[in-house]
Amino acid sequence: MPNKSKAILKAHSDFYTSFVSGDYSSMESVWARENPVLVTHPWGPAIAGRVNVMKSWEQILLNPPKIRCTDEKVELIGEFAIVTCIERASEGALAATNILVEENGSWVFCHHHAGPLAPVFSSPPSSVH
Amino acid sequence: MPNKSKAILKAHSDFYTSFVSGDYSSMESVWARENPVLVTHPWGPAIAGRVNVMKSWEQILLNPPKIRCTDEKVELIGEFAIVTCIERASEGALAATNILVEENGSWVFCHHHAGPLAPVFSSPPSSVH
Repeated sequence: MPNKSKAILKAHSDFYTSFVSGDYSSMESVWARENPVLVTHPWGPAIAGRVNVMKSWEQILLNPPKIRCTDEKVELIGEFAIVTCIERASEGALAATNILVEENGSWVFCHHHAGPLAPVFSSPPSSVH
Repeated sequence: MPNKSKAILKAHSDFYTSFVSGDYSSMESVWARENPVLVTHPWGPAIAGRVNVMKSWEQILLNPPKIRCTDEKVELIGEFAIVTCIERASEGALAATNILVEENGSWVFCHHHAGPLAPVFSSPPSSVH
């Protein structure tokens, strides 16, 4: 399904463009309107509901972070997609999970979770990769 | 859909029981076999594919962490479920995103992402909740 993956990665990229440019209106358009939405910012816990989720973005986008998204992986599972990536910021790297669904022909976000790769947890058993 | 939510939370709880008890065989049974699987451990990035994902659990369960799961939120979106929670460990708290799908009448995991709530990112804008 290369075309689906392409459309998903385009929506994923639009999210990060909105994020780093602090463009709230564009950020609003990449989030689902017909499905439940959730977000887990690095300071957690999860925020539920479009109104609350968008309110959190409105505040965050006042001071947009300088992040660069790398290591994207897309998995299509039935009617939804999981995209994982690494967000590289000056403060350090974060691992992100993004969940997208299709609404009216467009892929939109229903969940974003970003959590830092904290040093305290950075020593997995040697054979874990 | 209270019955669905109940079944999802039971599967979610089984995952954490396997995790803290270091029971690999039980952990294996809560992961999807017919859908793609991914995992993002706190040291990231994401690991893809059932073989690699289970290999990571096999190593981690040699020294199971003492974690307690709180603040569960379930969102059913079409054919899949997002469960968010906080994992409370002695080293600190982690935010988790778990994605479950139904296979042959049972809810199983296709993604787990746990990331610490690191102090460097713990000061959101004052009005973000």
